[in-house]
Amino acid sequence: MGRGRTERVLVHRVHGDDRPRRQPDDLIVEEPLEILLDGHLVTTTMRTPGDDFELAVGFCFTDGLLAGAPVLRCRYCSDERSGVEAEFNVVTVETGGRAPVPEPRLTSTTSSCGLCGSMSITDLQTRLQPLAGIEPFAFEVLAAVPERVRASQKLFATTGGVHAAAAFDRAGEPVIVREDIGRHNAVDKVVGRMLLDGRLPAHDLGLWVSGRASFELVQKAWAGGFAALVAVSAPSSLAVEAARSAGLILAGFARPGRLNIYAPADL
Amino acid sequence: MGRGRTERVLVHRVHGDDRPRRQPDDLIVEEPLEILLDGHLVTTTMRTPGDDFELAVGFCFTDGLLAGAPVLRCRYCSDERSGVEAEFNVVTVETGGRAPVPEPRLTSTTSSCGLCGSMSITDLQTRLQPLAGIEPFAFEVLAAVPERVRASQKLFATTGGVHAAAAFDRAGEPVIVREDIGRHNAVDKVVGRMLLDGRLPAHDLGLWVSGRASFELVQKAWAGGFAALVAVSAPSSLAVEAARSAGLILAGFARPGRLNIYAPADL
Repeated sequence: MGRGRTERVLVHRVHGDDRPRRQPDDLIVEEPLEILLDGHLVTTTMRTPGDDFELAVGFCFTDGLLAGAPVLRCRYCSDERSGVEAEFNVVTVETGGRAPVPEPRLTSTTSSCGLCGSMSITDLQTRLQPLAGIEPFAFEVLAAVPERVRASQKLFATTGGVHAAAAFDRAGEPVIVREDIGRHNAVDKVVGRMLLDGRLPAHDLGLWVSGRASFELVQKAWAGGFAALVAVSAPSSLAVEAARSAGLILAGFARPGRLNIYAPADL
Repeated sequence: MGRGRTERVLVHRVHGDDRPRRQPDDLIVEEPLEILLDGHLVTTTMRTPGDDFELAVGFCFTDGLLAGAPVLRCRYCSDERSGVEAEFNVVTVETGGRAPVPEPRLTSTTSSCGLCGSMSITDLQTRLQPLAGIEPFAFEVLAAVPERVRASQKLFATTGGVHAAAAFDRAGEPVIVREDIGRHNAVDKVVGRMLLDGRLPAHDLGLWVSGRASFELVQKAWAGGFAALVAVSAPSSLAVEAARSAGLILAGFARPGRLNIYAPADL
């Protein structure tokens, strides 16, 4: 179905003063995906093919575009512009017109961007409830998640160039793992799968991401109702501020036996 | 001027079974920046404050929005919506109306996204010339760049959560280094600085990026006329395909004494 997720090319490996050796290398595939909501274009994202419906649904949901409307179905929709190669690069999410018509936006990140960070957080607060009464996770469980997800990062093992996101339970067991060249896409694929399975809000689960935690990832975790967001690397100032507003546990630099808790401010 | 680039917060450091310790931690600042071209909004990006004019100019240039028009000046432009906090979060690039009026686009990545990757490359080929007659870089020079840039990655040293990009000369000496929470922004800041200094096309320089090499980064390097793009991590399938079309040297997994050459296909 469409292109694969990895592609093998011949590359030249250079090592010290040796003559470069020509060897095969597996690359992660990057292809554009147009996401439509009830036929209206909402975004084009560069993604790794696979789990496209989850990605489209997750994007529309975490970006607030569904506004509570149910997803009736998803489908690939090619038109006269598309050849065989593009056949799986356009997805429409259908709510039977129950979602508001998406407004054209000029943003490379998120609809919540205001003129400043605190306005971005205020925007989120108008559509998302604080995560009240969330049961805390054991720190050792949060710190162990990266290790436990690794076995499922099959594309990373092959290519070394792909992000991942995972939903995990209170024992730290990964329940859904998705990989994508984009960290945000990987998260949308996880959230989209959970929405399609009727498993949101995910108050009993945490969300893990490879790499750093940005404002937008906190937004996505908050929208999904996750109890915690765990990043392998550092969060941004705005991510911490947003997580503290949300009542979301935000952990960073998670590795076996250690991590930093950025939110809540007081344990 | 506006917010700083880092912000200190108190976090809880968890280590093994010890009681969490409350300690200060420096976070990288993330704030939205609205970029306008002759007064028309072209994008909103989450960025680390600083070098905002370079970022705005670099974005407009690498995205093809200037279409050859000269940059007459840049300025911060706040309006009635903006308070003190937002004062430095809107930048307009002025060409005196010589750049085409930007069209509203619905894309989270680049204007070059077509319905499929090869169409994205074809789009680039219509506005960018192949980099013909580029003098090759010595492999050991390319492999040494990450080490040589590190001393200039001051925000990374403080926060551990920020990307960087650098223009480097044929001896591998960094000539411009910029850091940003977004890899693409860091590249735009480098390219924007060079454009403002009248140093483009940069046929005698290479471009280094922390992290991976995506299609969009190849687009930016190609637009700037760089001879080479060197990434610390893996390139995507489409990045390799685009670099081979461009005649751009693309190296990945660069570290002391070793790297992979992905483009050109034949050495």
